[in-house]
Amino acid sequence: MRHTISVLVENKFGVLARISGLFSARGFNISSLAVGETEDPSVSRMTIVVEGDEKTLEQIKKQLNKLIDVIKVVDFKEGEFIDRELILIKVAVTPKNRKEILEAIESSDAKIENAGSKSVSVEVTGDQTRIKAILELLRPFGILEVVRTGRIAMSIEDKGLSVGGKPEVNE
Amino acid sequence: MRHTISVLVENKFGVLARISGLFSARGFNISSLAVGETEDPSVSRMTIVVEGDEKTLEQIKKQLNKLIDVIKVVDFKEGEFIDRELILIKVAVTPKNRKEILEAIESSDAKIENAGSKSVSVEVTGDQTRIKAILELLRPFGILEVVRTGRIAMSIEDKGLSVGGKPEVNE
Repeated sequence: MRHTISVLVENKFGVLARISGLFSARGFNISSLAVGETEDPSVSRMTIVVEGDEKTLEQIKKQLNKLIDVIKVVDFKEGEFIDRELILIKVAVTPKNRKEILEAIESSDAKIENAGSKSVSVEVTGDQTRIKAILELLRPFGILEVVRTGRIAMSIEDKGLSVGGKPEVNE
Repeated sequence: MRHTISVLVENKFGVLARISGLFSARGFNISSLAVGETEDPSVSRMTIVVEGDEKTLEQIKKQLNKLIDVIKVVDFKEGEFIDRELILIKVAVTPKNRKEILEAIESSDAKIENAGSKSVSVEVTGDQTRIKAILELLRPFGILEVVRTGRIAMSIEDKGLSVGGKPEVNE
């Protein structure tokens, strides 16, 4: 099963290596990982998408909560959060298919970021369904490069996680 | 100095932990990290933003290139790439300031993703200047939560990195 987990951590050396090591030591493959600062520069948030069984994940969450640099762990439940990803796609163009490609991009809501003579780069933001659709639209033209941020998620609750939010995982 | 580095890696257990460990062992703090799949599911790309001196970074790049699971390392040079980040921001609203906040959001090009009675969540995509601007616009209202993907970068060259691109860092 695929899980989306948010981990608030102290922004310190080695925390990232420790946390990713914890997943890999238990044979969990991290499908995507996004790490960014929060409003408090001493705190970072990791959004981790992993595939694995429920029981092992429970153990990992317990171990995460024991790490001194981990402030909070949230395992998002279906329907309780919005998830988004940003992706940059570079598509090959030729003088012959240029017009067709630009029209295809225009018909989607991808945004053109760079248009060279041999390639066009677009930016797409959305949930996984939307990103998959745009990749399928552009794939027949020849995709030269794909850069993805990995998924981020935010609860739809009115409270924040970092400020006054109630812990969703407690040990 | 701030560096944006792209590392193509085999999508295997433990690679992420090994690479982030390499940076932290040398005292480099990772400001942001985004890991996502490429068009080839066996290959992932990490975009890493780090702060540190040039000489140590050269050593790290050499070490990265020696790792068996590392396919390619690119240290992006100013002006040669586009960089983007996606950020979700949850802002507190009250019946009194709701209209003002919605107008402020509308004046920017942030996109409303969820609007509750006590909070509004928006999505913003852009370069660092744009993201900073929207955070400054919304901060006075009270930010409850910020989730960032970390920066991703793509060269503006016509060639792709993963398919037929020429290596930009060779040891």
